[in-house]
Amino acid sequence: MDLKSKRIAILAPVAWRTPPRAYGAWETVASNITEGLVSRGWKNVTLFATRESVTRARLIGWIERGYEEDKTQIPLVSTCLHISRAMQMADEFDLIHSNFDYLPLTYLPFIKTPMLTTIHGFSEPDILRIYRDHKDTYYVSISDADRDTELPYLATVYNGIDLSNLTFRQTRGEKLVCYGRIHPDKGFHLAIEVARKSGMELILAGIIQDQDYFNKEVKPHVNDKSIRFIGPVNPEQRDALLKEAYAVLHLNTIPERFGLVMAESMAAGVPVIAMDLGSCREVIADGETGWLVNNVDEAVGAIDKIDRIDRRKCRQRVEENFTIDKMVSSYEKVYAEIFRREAGKGKS
Amino acid sequence: MDLKSKRIAILAPVAWRTPPRAYGAWETVASNITEGLVSRGWKNVTLFATRESVTRARLIGWIERGYEEDKTQIPLVSTCLHISRAMQMADEFDLIHSNFDYLPLTYLPFIKTPMLTTIHGFSEPDILRIYRDHKDTYYVSISDADRDTELPYLATVYNGIDLSNLTFRQTRGEKLVCYGRIHPDKGFHLAIEVARKSGMELILAGIIQDQDYFNKEVKPHVNDKSIRFIGPVNPEQRDALLKEAYAVLHLNTIPERFGLVMAESMAAGVPVIAMDLGSCREVIADGETGWLVNNVDEAVGAIDKIDRIDRRKCRQRVEENFTIDKMVSSYEKVYAEIFRREAGKGKS
Repeated sequence: MDLKSKRIAILAPVAWRTPPRAYGAWETVASNITEGLVSRGWKNVTLFATRESVTRARLIGWIERGYEEDKTQIPLVSTCLHISRAMQMADEFDLIHSNFDYLPLTYLPFIKTPMLTTIHGFSEPDILRIYRDHKDTYYVSISDADRDTELPYLATVYNGIDLSNLTFRQTRGEKLVCYGRIHPDKGFHLAIEVARKSGMELILAGIIQDQDYFNKEVKPHVNDKSIRFIGPVNPEQRDALLKEAYAVLHLNTIPERFGLVMAESMAAGVPVIAMDLGSCREVIADGETGWLVNNVDEAVGAIDKIDRIDRRKCRQRVEENFTIDKMVSSYEKVYAEIFRREAGKGKS
Repeated sequence: MDLKSKRIAILAPVAWRTPPRAYGAWETVASNITEGLVSRGWKNVTLFATRESVTRARLIGWIERGYEEDKTQIPLVSTCLHISRAMQMADEFDLIHSNFDYLPLTYLPFIKTPMLTTIHGFSEPDILRIYRDHKDTYYVSISDADRDTELPYLATVYNGIDLSNLTFRQTRGEKLVCYGRIHPDKGFHLAIEVARKSGMELILAGIIQDQDYFNKEVKPHVNDKSIRFIGPVNPEQRDALLKEAYAVLHLNTIPERFGLVMAESMAAGVPVIAMDLGSCREVIADGETGWLVNNVDEAVGAIDKIDRIDRRKCRQRVEENFTIDKMVSSYEKVYAEIFRREAGKGKS
């Protein structure tokens, strides 16, 4: 049977619309995979998502709106209703691709259809109890770094980003930029230290996820001159922000799982100075699209070496590795491998 | 096949040990049913609960300790692991009796064994979405009042209480008593009003569930003389408390689902003055084991009529309706009806 005729179910979460109107990381990936498969000629793609979701594939859902957008819903009620109902249709598919964390795995023993789970990060160590309870299934990691040693991964598939609104510019800006969700993990306080030591201006942007951290570690340093905070940015604003960037500082304090900010930054031609923790060494090419560092002083040193980076190489790295089309073609290979293995079991 | 040879699985939650060391309402009921079945000669009873649980039945579990007693666990991880694993053993049982709220229902479409769910109350209206998604199964309500109009109930089975530490006393005490979890629903503020208007002393007891309510509506009235608050009571302390009771005030402000406090009170021979909302008229016999009222003034009036209540009738009502043995024998009838219906389907 033609690979692209296989019946694929993409399971999205129901916290937000798919694709989300604004925030909603897993729904974004689920949408990108679904639309990407359709674009690449897959004929039988079904998206399980909220009923108001938008897709060129077949849409099936039982939850009208995301529970984050309709607070009358108990999230767990919507979640389990959605998963259970989708799983009851399992026989109608050749493969279920779950982008919905660990809960669908607890229904897996009851269905015959193979399931692929993309693990978008281990939100807490305890959720490993569920993953490790299901080793006879298929997993994809979003970076080589973000892997549990006990799980059987088929592949790493990097997230693909939408390159619209990420204008490549050959000319560099003059400021340091640090953006993302404002949380200690993302090292905004370290970016501030780097700006001070280097004497360069810094622009901070993003949603405030940890208000206490923002109040104590960020806000006191904002002076509307050398250090500015401009709040959250939409794609257009992000593009304008990156235009001003000499370099993006990504001084994460815990291992990065993937790091969308680094990919976006490189797409605009902006080199990244990143802490060498987790996936950062996979996303940036050290010395070629940015610099890996281990502390604030090394980050300050890296600023002096930014002119050695060819901005076209930054863009090129994204085009070759982190586009939606690249992500979907990687998933096609994973799907093919699953069908090969399942056929070997005499199942499909 | 002999009814008492049927293979019964009792599914308990894993928030606490079964039976709980202190608090844990659903685990208490699950334990009472399990041990009651064993006492009544059932030969193949399995309790699914935390691994440290204590039972005379067969115990199966995957979660060592309750997640409320071991805060390293994510409750949902333990919950879904427990339910999924138990459901994977469904074929080994003739009936699964769930005391675990709505989540097990989402696994029901995948198993063949009939399931009985005791609905211990609708914690929030939204959970009805799951119940109403599963109408082809078996439900028991814990009072006639606590029913959803759309669900197919087999019966009401009242909770049974453990009569040890509930000493019947022919002689009445001299004070008003109000106890339970301290929350606006339970009308502690109304009990205080009744005490003031009647000029009688009042003792309040229980765990503080709503600290704000306690601080604003209860604490300011506590004076260590006419109105006292003695905190939570264990079974021995509860027995001593009921010894002092002239009547127990149960002035709930929302419909009661069952009302353990009323049963406990009557077991000690203490008449109950209860708001006529929800199950109260099922638990007390108006004019015989207490008085149903509609407001504070009626409650004050009821105090004057307490001497018309025969305290032996209070005890008798509990012995006839609200013992563990009575509860379990009611469940035996429900089980028999389920087996009859399943046999009619040609399933068992």
